Amino acid sequence: MINISVIGATGYTGLELMCILSSHPHARVRHLVSRNNAGSFVTDLYPNLITYKDKKFEELCIDDIANDSDFVFTALPHAASAEVCGKLIGKGVKVIDLSADFRYNDIGVYEKWYKVKHPCPEINKRAVYGLTEIYRDKIINADIVGNPGCYTTCSIMPLYPLFKEGLVNTDTVIIDAKSGISGAGRKADLNMSFAEVNENFKAYSLTNHRHTSEIEQELSLAAGKDILISFNPHLLPIQRGILCTIYCDVAKDITEQDIYNCYNDYYGNEHFVIINKEGVLPQIKQVKHTNFISIGFALDKRLNKLIVVSAIDNLTKGASGQAVQNMNVMSKIPEICGLENVSKYI
Amino acid sequence: MINISVIGATGYTGLELMCILSSHPHARVRHLVSRNNAGSFVTDLYPNLITYKDKKFEELCIDDIANDSDFVFTALPHAASAEVCGKLIGKGVKVIDLSADFRYNDIGVYEKWYKVKHPCPEINKRAVYGLTEIYRDKIINADIVGNPGCYTTCSIMPLYPLFKEGLVNTDTVIIDAKSGISGAGRKADLNMSFAEVNENFKAYSLTNHRHTSEIEQELSLAAGKDILISFNPHLLPIQRGILCTIYCDVAKDITEQDIYNCYNDYYGNEHFVIINKEGVLPQIKQVKHTNFISIGFALDKRLNKLIVVSAIDNLTKGASGQAVQNMNVMSKIPEICGLENVSKYI
Amino acid sequence: MINISVIGATGYTGLELMCILSSHPHARVRHLVSRNNAGSFVTDLYPNLITYKDKKFEELCIDDIANDSDFVFTALPHAASAEVCGKLIGKGVKVIDLSADFRYNDIGVYEKWYKVKHPCPEINKRAVYGLTEIYRDKIINADIVGNPGCYTTCSIMPLYPLFKEGLVNTDTVIIDAKSGISGAGRKADLNMSFAEVNENFKAYSLTNHRHTSEIEQELSLAAGKDILISFNPHLLPIQRGILCTIYCDVAKDITEQDIYNCYNDYYGNEHFVIINKEGVLPQIKQVKHTNFISIGFALDKRLNKLIVVSAIDNLTKGASGQAVQNMNVMSKIPEICGLENVSKYI
Amino acid sequence: MINISVIGATGYTGLELMCILSSHPHARVRHLVSRNNAGSFVTDLYPNLITYKDKKFEELCIDDIANDSDFVFTALPHAASAEVCGKLIGKGVKVIDLSADFRYNDIGVYEKWYKVKHPCPEINKRAVYGLTEIYRDKIINADIVGNPGCYTTCSIMPLYPLFKEGLVNTDTVIIDAKSGISGAGRKADLNMSFAEVNENFKAYSLTNHRHTSEIEQELSLAAGKDILISFNPHLLPIQRGILCTIYCDVAKDITEQDIYNCYNDYYGNEHFVIINKEGVLPQIKQVKHTNFISIGFALDKRLNKLIVVSAIDNLTKGASGQAVQNMNVMSKIPEICGLENVSKYI
Repeated sequence: MINISVIGATGYTGLELMCILSSHPHARVRHLVSRNNAGSFVTDLYPNLITYKDKKFEELCIDDIANDSDFVFTALPHAASAEVCGKLIGKGVKVIDLSADFRYNDIGVYEKWYKVKHPCPEINKRAVYGLTEIYRDKIINADIVGNPGCYTTCSIMPLYPLFKEGLVNTDTVIIDAKSGISGAGRKADLNMSFAEVNENFKAYSLTNHRHTSEIEQELSLAAGKDILISFNPHLLPIQRGILCTIYCDVAKDITEQDIYNCYNDYYGNEHFVIINKEGVLPQIKQVKHTNFISIGFALDKRLNKLIVVSAIDNLTKGASGQAVQNMNVMSKIPEICGLENVSKYI
Repeated sequence: MINISVIGATGYTGLELMCILSSHPHARVRHLVSRNNAGSFVTDLYPNLITYKDKKFEELCIDDIANDSDFVFTALPHAASAEVCGKLIGKGVKVIDLSADFRYNDIGVYEKWYKVKHPCPEINKRAVYGLTEIYRDKIINADIVGNPGCYTTCSIMPLYPLFKEGLVNTDTVIIDAKSGISGAGRKADLNMSFAEVNENFKAYSLTNHRHTSEIEQELSLAAGKDILISFNPHLLPIQRGILCTIYCDVAKDITEQDIYNCYNDYYGNEHFVIINKEGVLPQIKQVKHTNFISIGFALDKRLNKLIVVSAIDNLTKGASGQAVQNMNVMSKIPEICGLENVSKYI
Repeated sequence: MINISVIGATGYTGLELMCILSSHPHARVRHLVSRNNAGSFVTDLYPNLITYKDKKFEELCIDDIANDSDFVFTALPHAASAEVCGKLIGKGVKVIDLSADFRYNDIGVYEKWYKVKHPCPEINKRAVYGLTEIYRDKIINADIVGNPGCYTTCSIMPLYPLFKEGLVNTDTVIIDAKSGISGAGRKADLNMSFAEVNENFKAYSLTNHRHTSEIEQELSLAAGKDILISFNPHLLPIQRGILCTIYCDVAKDITEQDIYNCYNDYYGNEHFVIINKEGVLPQIKQVKHTNFISIGFALDKRLNKLIVVSAIDNLTKGASGQAVQNMNVMSKIPEICGLENVSKYI
Repeated sequence: MINISVIGATGYTGLELMCILSSHPHARVRHLVSRNNAGSFVTDLYPNLITYKDKKFEELCIDDIANDSDFVFTALPHAASAEVCGKLIGKGVKVIDLSADFRYNDIGVYEKWYKVKHPCPEINKRAVYGLTEIYRDKIINADIVGNPGCYTTCSIMPLYPLFKEGLVNTDTVIIDAKSGISGAGRKADLNMSFAEVNENFKAYSLTNHRHTSEIEQELSLAAGKDILISFNPHLLPIQRGILCTIYCDVAKDITEQDIYNCYNDYYGNEHFVIINKEGVLPQIKQVKHTNFISIGFALDKRLNKLIVVSAIDNLTKGASGQAVQNMNVMSKIPEICGLENVSKYI
């Protein structure tokens, strides 16, 4: 069994981790840390988690956690997360961090977009970016993984192969992203109340959402040159799920088969990637509550424009599911352990 | 024109008042008071209220309000509301209070269920209970009206005629009530967040909801004896609307026609009461965003049980719409002024 | 491995079966029958079912199914289902029928409420009612199980122990039931369209819903005398889940501890039954997408009335989950196989 | 009073017309035509329309309608609508057609995108395109108006001034559009069922939606040259409302003030156009159930890209509200008659 602790367990990514781990065949959950809810039973906050009966949230005690855990998932606010991770790494525990703290190769970019000084730049140098399908070979030997953001996973995965193979004009990318409310976390916030969100739809953070920088980092690596993209998020009146509609110009002679083949070459053997047939488009209910990403596309021959659509569950493939996928890779157990479920559709 | 001010304008009943008054042909809105948002433009909080362009929320100034207003709507928390109302009444303004402070004939009942000392029992003696269809004759000459609660309006109106006419066994009443989230007000509260409320349904305050006492007061008056009822609310994942399913035992020989006739006698000429034909049941979308109440019923001959179903919009007939209806009555203008709209159904 | 076929696979209970079976460690899915969609790929209808890649829906061929299957789940309309079951039983296959056809001890009651002649009364005599927690001892040796209805599971389970132990007045039971839309099946029906259902709530089939008869059958057995109950369903604007609020009179001296103890005696060791602590009430998100039933209660000492609240997922514990639970019992494998997941809460 | 009939009254645009007309101070509703529901009471289909008590839907009788009506709204499927309009125009009635039949200057474009022969090209020559704010001067004297599509209203209005003034690169326009389900009409269709639509989101008709051609017609007129645009719709799990996110390249020296001034010049005096201040973005709840359009924008200086966001209610400004607005113009009564209401926000 793998001994696992979660720090920041009561937020929605923590909740998702607890759900996944509760039916993971190799997982043994040790410490569930929550500063605000230490001493409470897990089932007092989350009555659905009945497999955690009699288990309580705890205060953070680095030593206990390090002693008892093979893996620690950290799901704290940025900067706070890095501090805790630094201590854990120092004690030889493997860490998968769900904050933004270990996602950036260049700390300057992180500090500019997150407006905070990075607490442990030395550790950051060892961190591997946890987009499993792309960095699996490095993840397998990592001791600290910076788990990608939700929007970024849904944006990078469909664009990465196209950029690598030079199939699209990399200067023309527009990502129109739509996310369910759980992407904003678990908060007492009027703007997140049912009466405000339901039967509504709106754009937010146009032109300046932080995930822009993370997407640009990875696509620049894929393209071999510095790339800027237009990333623009919207808030859907649903609980979970992200769908991105991505626009890019293509050369006149590019065909739908070219695009399909490119995806098939990169992802044809990936369990968690659904490549949709021509004319079939992803939808959120295809991937909800699962670790899958669904990718489809349409080619506009009038305008020589490629429209790629991608969908994930923001809490699973966009956060905790991918984190467990990374843990599986690092533990050399089958990558789909604990992540076998398909979406229930309704 | 009627000069009107609203104290506690930024909550959802205040919002509903502002919406209704914006197209009321005789209303002139003077002061919109909000302690938390004084100085802000109305449209900064509610971008939909574009007819209030350039108008700002203000601090409470009793003198200005009394000088400039014929009517004041108070929508403050209980006890706080009564204090303000007391001062306004002292200055000769007519007041319609949307809190619970002036709904009770017996202050002891109020103080027991609301666990607070009533701030102005003298004023309470002059207050009229604002269930328009039942107390219209008293409301017309009142200077202070205690506007009924949302659940109570939806519960009392269908039961009142049956109790008056002795058609049901008054000891057997069970009200299973279901309300949309706006009934809980406008708050930054985790339990009211979209992720918690959506795709969920639950009971709350079983056996001890405060509106129980208000319903019992009015039904006791109707029956001419002390009545206890079982009132049990639930939270619907919708924004607005209440539907009550009401169970009572009836004598063997009661027919559907008896019930229909009773409703027709009491409400047949009421503009805002929809009496549904046999076999037709109310639904929330029939009355959403309107001041109507819809009443229907089924008679279970196997069990000699009458099941009455009633539906209102909790913010309109259940609060601000009925408040404006009362103002219209007190102003001797047509009762439906500003309340003409039918539900848009979708 | 257990060889399994599903007849009527494209409805929502069929969909739920396919989902559950796709991660059931002992299940091998053989034939998926759908008259309307024979020849289509499973993923053409349900793009979420990617583990069924390359599998097609088929026409009904009794011989093939009987040859290849240890178990068959039938999810056809009533009467049609019994005919198919009759043929399969004749060939020695074990059958779990999700229609109403094999739920009644007395065919006369079935024929009265369903207004159809029972196609195979002989088979009906051998059928066992599939409420697992209550009839487990008979189910284990059954070759045909009549899987209970969704409303009935959610109604009988909380009332059965109370009736058995004589804790409530059995003549006073009122069940106010609320269900998500998937309980009505998968249909092109205007009344089930999003624009009609969303932001709405209504009662339907008051006093005459067919599940009344199924509930009365089981409660009469529990009470040892003929029982009539008032069962009244409502339509919730959610996809899945049932919550029942159940009212019954109790003797003056009954305490909350009595009720809790009763549930604990009957269900304390049941994996799929959550007995909530005093003051904690079930909610739909506690059990959504799971095979659990959650039971809680409040005691109204003013009125000597017990209010029991129960919640299930109508497609899982209320249909396909319980069907798989029964198959597990009949196969002598752990009862929770394939049903381990807890609700994801959001 | 203006005598008005509606042909095709039972669809959602018909429903919206009936709602608006029921509180229009100058409207007298004469005939409500519905082939499928002739003979039924209006309130049998729409229990919310209680102001139409005792009124029935009728068969189509051109003579009666022409005799009794000053204005006729036609809300039939395309081609069917034109045939009826042709007959009505021949009898001297003014017609506002909500189908696509009279929206195109060039019948060839209509016939190509709608794949049908136009039934009355002669009438089409007299038709005026009913985008009120842009063609008001022509509408005032028209006898037949082709009322614009919902997506097109929401797309053209924000782009028209920018194109007229040459503020954006007209070759770079991408419209990412999101609509509530009522845009698809009132149908018994599995894809529109609650269980399918709720908690889901998807793109559809990428690159080939018919409204593309209508948008291109008007923007080409604005630009003075042939324009192609990329228009891509998505389905929101809400009942009403459209939000468009529009991307276009701009010259380096364009400022936010330039954009704001341009909108202010064109729409500053328009009652139904909300021009949002810098940094404030439209949302659907701002305009739901109203005839307003809300326009806001962000300028991406990194990429020299303008992002315009626009929001309308698809059934009001996007269909029936604008139709009534046009009738008001043609009747020389205040343009806002019957359209005074602001959104209730929740």
